[in-house]
Formats: sequence, structure tokens, C-alpha cells
Amino acid sequence: MNNPPANPNPLSQRIGIIGGGQLGKMMILEARKLSFRVVVLDPTPGCPCHGICDEHIVAAFDDREAIAALAEKCDVITYEFEDIDAGALLELERRGKRVYPTASSLLIIQDKFLQKQALKEGGIPVPEFACCGSAADVRVLGEKWGWPLILKARRGGYDGKGNAVAGSAGEAGEAAASLGRGDFFAEKWINFDMEVSVLACRGLDGSVAVYPVGMNEHRESILRRSTVPAPISEKAARSASEIAGKVMRVFGGVGMFGVEMFVCGDEVLVNEVAPRPHNSGHYTIESCVTSQFANHIRAVAGLPLGSPEMTVGAAVMENILGSGETEGPGSAGGQNRINGTAVPAPLYGAEAALAVPGVSLHVYGKERSARNRKMGHLTAVGRTVGEARGRAAEAMRSIRI
Amino acid sequence: MNNPPANPNPLSQRIGIIGGGQLGKMMILEARKLSFRVVVLDPTPGCPCHGICDEHIVAAFDDREAIAALAEKCDVITYEFEDIDAGALLELERRGKRVYPTASSLLIIQDKFLQKQALKEGGIPVPEFACCGSAADVRVLGEKWGWPLILKARRGGYDGKGNAVAGSAGEAGEAAASLGRGDFFAEKWINFDMEVSVLACRGLDGSVAVYPVGMNEHRESILRRSTVPAPISEKAARSASEIAGKVMRVFGGVGMFGVEMFVCGDEVLVNEVAPRPHNSGHYTIESCVTSQFANHIRAVAGLPLGSPEMTVGAAVMENILGSGETEGPGSAGGQNRINGTAVPAPLYGAEAALAVPGVSLHVYGKERSARNRKMGHLTAVGRTVGEARGRAAEAMRSIRI
Repeated sequence: MNNPPANPNPLSQRIGIIGGGQLGKMMILEARKLSFRVVVLDPTPGCPCHGICDEHIVAAFDDREAIAALAEKCDVITYEFEDIDAGALLELERRGKRVYPTASSLLIIQDKFLQKQALKEGGIPVPEFACCGSAADVRVLGEKWGWPLILKARRGGYDGKGNAVAGSAGEAGEAAASLGRGDFFAEKWINFDMEVSVLACRGLDGSVAVYPVGMNEHRESILRRSTVPAPISEKAARSASEIAGKVMRVFGGVGMFGVEMFVCGDEVLVNEVAPRPHNSGHYTIESCVTSQFANHIRAVAGLPLGSPEMTVGAAVMENILGSGETEGPGSAGGQNRINGTAVPAPLYGAEAALAVPGVSLHVYGKERSARNRKMGHLTAVGRTVGEARGRAAEAMRSIRI
Repeated sequence: MNNPPANPNPLSQRIGIIGGGQLGKMMILEARKLSFRVVVLDPTPGCPCHGICDEHIVAAFDDREAIAALAEKCDVITYEFEDIDAGALLELERRGKRVYPTASSLLIIQDKFLQKQALKEGGIPVPEFACCGSAADVRVLGEKWGWPLILKARRGGYDGKGNAVAGSAGEAGEAAASLGRGDFFAEKWINFDMEVSVLACRGLDGSVAVYPVGMNEHRESILRRSTVPAPISEKAARSASEIAGKVMRVFGGVGMFGVEMFVCGDEVLVNEVAPRPHNSGHYTIESCVTSQFANHIRAVAGLPLGSPEMTVGAAVMENILGSGETEGPGSAGGQNRINGTAVPAPLYGAEAALAVPGVSLHVYGKERSARNRKMGHLTAVGRTVGEARGRAAEAMRSIRI
């Protein structure tokens, strides 16, 4: 890790972001409050970050020349997704560029097997897991731990992609084959009560801010709803918070991390860690003293972290997912375009949704909608979880995309 | 007023903003959350809105062709300051363009004498005032109301500019002359306990959202600090809120208005109305369910208003003003420029300020600093006014600009 040089005006730093999607967009909206200049690298001309950054380098994520050009223009580099070329980031660090979260922490986290090993070695409770080379290995583990088993590709999975369930010895071959040719590992099946996540941020000075525990509900392996605070025992909540703080020290991460966990009664096990602001932390924009995006920007710029405390009684975040394909760019929206900015895929019902008390709407501005694509989200705040939940549900009933 | 056509997707509207300063910037950061496309008109190439809007028309505010070009590109037009060519806006409305606040309300508000008359006729309590043609008129009023008197230019004043105090009959001539050649009027001097303001927003449907009462402290006629809630009697607070709601109905305004008032015991008098988000409402970004900028965008886009309720116990906003001239654009920052974006004038001490709990910092990104120029602000939240005030003061001690 390269420590930043003493800078009397840290706000003069230029921030480079690899990835121009909704996470990058929400980072930029915070960075702009402090007048940071921002350059984005993303292959999509009309990506959500286009039009709010100072420069948009339109290039593939694995284009090393483009990454070098980004670094040339910026003082610090961050990213909004973990499946990027960590080798390119290592190279930047070698040349003295600051990259947060660091390339070395990314290298471990983006390999889910190494990630789990690091967590285990760091004393973090995780489900039992083991390396697999073949379907035969899966069958051996199934006999040992019992069926079903969950198989996970070591790299590249997200939103349930890269995971497979082997329900019995007979299914082991098919499940392993469904993951493609990459390496994978097996994990013991956990009969959890619920999935939760804890967002945590680590500053350059080693200080850690831990957000409240949220409950996550998935459908088709995609996050649909986060409810904060999570309805779990005080003991489990304390465990989850402590574990998230510990995870930040294991990886020596700088910036926001999302720590996904399983809760079984009072017991908490870590499922997965994401080295970036996390979908389950979007509620923090309206509900906490400092949002996950504000703290991420503070962290990567070497500024002190803000309080992660909630200012409202409860918050419920609902993802707004595409229902089907829309026409691509250049069709109906073509004449409606301003300076290359995307014409967002239409979202209907905003009016009715915003009429519900305590509801804020976020539309990412993607040109193309597709089934289960994350197009936006809404957050409802309330005095109680019940109130926030009712408001979120009422608002969601109006939204069509 | 032109009512908007029924639009199943109001988020597809393009918003035009006249003025690219900090108020425009904070409007855009909210508009972007909903993926509105935004075009700005401002004569300064590196103004705070540059780099976050889809297009920046670099033109003078009185350039009617540029205003027409802005309207051509947009579905709805709003503005961040009131001293603009209302005739040009009337012309846009005549051609069927939506302008909020409406040109007719702006025409009355931007003439402080007509504004006061409209308030009085609407049953709003205001200090005694009367039209003046000359210093002789001032002397007559002084004999009637007692000295001192306050003289106000009918048009163009802000931050104390356009105001003069005549302490006695002998000073009437000099005070009147200091206002230049424009028309002016006189107002009875009010020995107020404090100045307060109430932000209010009116939606297209006529609904009104009224924010809590804030106390404002000025120095050299420039707002320095707003404290919310204001330490006034319950009766005065109720009066102030009711008056603000009434003011919104008097002008039929659409969008955010700032209503400045004097408090004398339980009595409340309106001093001035600004037809836009107001400096004293910046605290709403961190402290209310819906910020003044979010509600302004909702209002001009014809969306339902959000709750103005506070989510924190108290908030204190401090303006960060320039202490002296900095080098202009193109000097030291020239090589540091990205795609024409301004290199903001340096601000020192952000690190120490952000280390104070509950503090958020906003830097407007202006290239050139000047004495008393508004360069940024900070908001401290806390459980009590005392806590927020202490935090704000501590943070301000570190800031140097």
C-alpha cells in the first residue's frame, strides 16, 4: 500500500473510478459535494456515470492502456466492481499510484476460495469449505458433510452466477459442469434463518466505521430488499458488527466493504465479502449520518470517516429490476439525446411512488433495460421497520419498468 | 402558468437551469438521482455546474437567444437566482414552455416593493413600508415612523447590497444616493430579536411542504450561520410556519421559496421572499427526509413533494466565505484541468473539519475565491442545538480558504 503524500488540500485530488455503473454514479454524486474531479473508465458510452464525471474514458475494463491513461489523469484509483484485472492495479501501485481498496486485498477477495481461506485464518466464522478438482471430490465432501452441497466458481461470480447446488451424489457431475471450466470449491449447506449484511468502511488511518446490520432478501439469487435494522437477536447483531470490523482488519482494506453473512439463531457465519459499496447499503444515503458512498470517497481520499449512525428508526430498500428488454440506444431516444448522454429506459409510476411518505427514488439512467437488470432502487424510511416496509411495498406497487 | 401535459414518464423531462452556481449544483445533484437530464446556462466556463450537467450553454444571463436555445433543449426551465430577465421568461411561457417559479410570480418578487405590496395585500404581516421618489420623501417618512429608516432598492439587491440605513433626516440624502439611480422604497426600522427563515415548497398540485424554522445570523449583511430549530417561542414558530405556507399561496409559486422573517417576541414579520432554494436551507440536505433541492426538483418536474421533516435533533449550517482574491483560472491550475472543468480554489483544513462528528462539508468548486464570496458550507448535526453548534464551531476553526 502506498501512503499518500502529505497534502494540505486533499480535495485537490483527482479520483479515477473503474466502472461507470450505479455504484460509480452514487460515489460521484458524493465526490462532487466536495468538488473532487472525477474520471471514469467504462466501455458503455451512455453509462450512468456519463455526464456527471469530468472525463469518461470509453474502453474495455481489461484494456491496460486505458487503465494506465486513467491513472495518468488521476491521483487515486478506485473501482465499483471486483472482477477486474488486479494485475493491472498491481502494476499501477508499483509505479507509485494509490489504488483503494489495494490490489493485494483485491487479489485475495476476487478469488472466493482465497477469500474464504483468509477469513478462516483471520478467525472469522465461515461455513465449512474445501477445494475441489472434480465431481469426485464433490461426492467425497457430500458424504462427509451431508447433502446438498453448494459449489462456487473461484472467480467471476455475482448475483448467484457462478454458484450451483448439488443435491445428491448423482447431481455432483452436472452441478460441477454448470460452473464451466474454471476452478471451484465446495461449501457445506447452511440452513440459515436469514441473510444479513454489514457495511463497513476502513480509513487510511486504520479507523473503522461499521453500519447497522441489515436483513437481505433475494429472489432468483438477486437482492430484492434490505431491511434495517435486521430483526435478529441482540447477540447476533453484536456478533455481526464485531465480525465486520474484524473482516476490515483481515484484508487491510481501505474504503467501503460489504460483508454478507448467514444468521442461524445467535450464530453468524460470513458468506462473502465485496470490496466496494454494496447494494444492501443503498439505504445509508437517506438513513445514516454519512452514506456508504460518502464514506468510500472520504476513505480513498485519505479523509477521516464520518459516522455510520442511523438518523431514522428504520429503512427498507427495494431494488427496481428490469422486466424485459427495451430498445437499445439510438432508437426512439436518439433525437432526445443531449451531448451523448443516455436517454434512460423509461420507468413508470415514479409519481405514485414518490407520493408515499418517506420514499426516495433512485433511477440509474441505464439506456437499456433487461430482465432482472438493476435499473434503480427506492428507499423508504420510517419510525419502525413495519412502517418503512409498508411504505416501500406501497411505492413498489406503482413502479413499472 | 402552463400545466404540464400528462406524461406517463415524468422522469424523461429535460430540466434547464439558468445559473450555474452552488444552488444550481445542488439542484443537479438531486436531479441526477432521478436521472433527469439537465442543461445549464451560465457565463462562467468553469462554474460549479460544469461537469455535472449534460450541456453547459456559456452565455450571459441577459442573452435572450441563449435563453431561447436553453428552452429549445428542455421541457421545463428553472433558475437559481431572481435577478434575471423576467420578460424573457414570460416570452417562453407565451410559447408554451413551462417555467417554475412562473414568470408572473418572479416579476412581482424581483421588485421588492411590488413583493411587499403583494404580501401585505395577501394578509401577511410585514414592516411598514412606503414608496419613495426622493430624499425628501425619506425625511417625511422618518418624521412619521421615527429614525433610523431602512432604504431598499426595488431591484437587484442581494447579500445586503441595495440596502442603506438613514440614521437621521440629515443622512437621508446620502443614504438615498448610495442606492444609485434606481427606484427605492423605505421601511420602518424593526428592533427584532432575531432573523429567521422558513423554507417552503409548493407543488404543481398546490400542495405545500413547510420546513422547520431556522435562525439566521449575518455579518456584513451576509448569512454566516443557520441554526435549526430556531430558539424561539412555540407561538412564534407556529406563526412563522403558517406565514410561510400563506406566502406560497400569495405568489402561487411552484418550487422552493425562502421566506426571511423578523421575530420580535411572539410576533413575526416577513422581511423578504426568495423564489428559489435558499442559503439558509442547505442544512436540509443532511437533516431532513427530503432536502430543499430534492423538493425543488420534484416540484418543477410536477412530482409529489417529499416530507420536510427533520431526521436529526438539530442542525447548524456555517457558510465558508472567501478571505481574499486567489489567482484566476488558467494560472496554477491550468495544467491540472480536466476537459475544461474548473480547478477549485484551494480549501485547507477539510481533514480536521471532517474529523468532527456529524459534520458534512460542501465545496462549491469555484475557481476564483474573493473576500466574502460563498465558496462552500458545512453542516453539523447533533441531538441538541448546543451539540450541533459546538461541532460546527469546532469544524469551522480548521477551515482556511
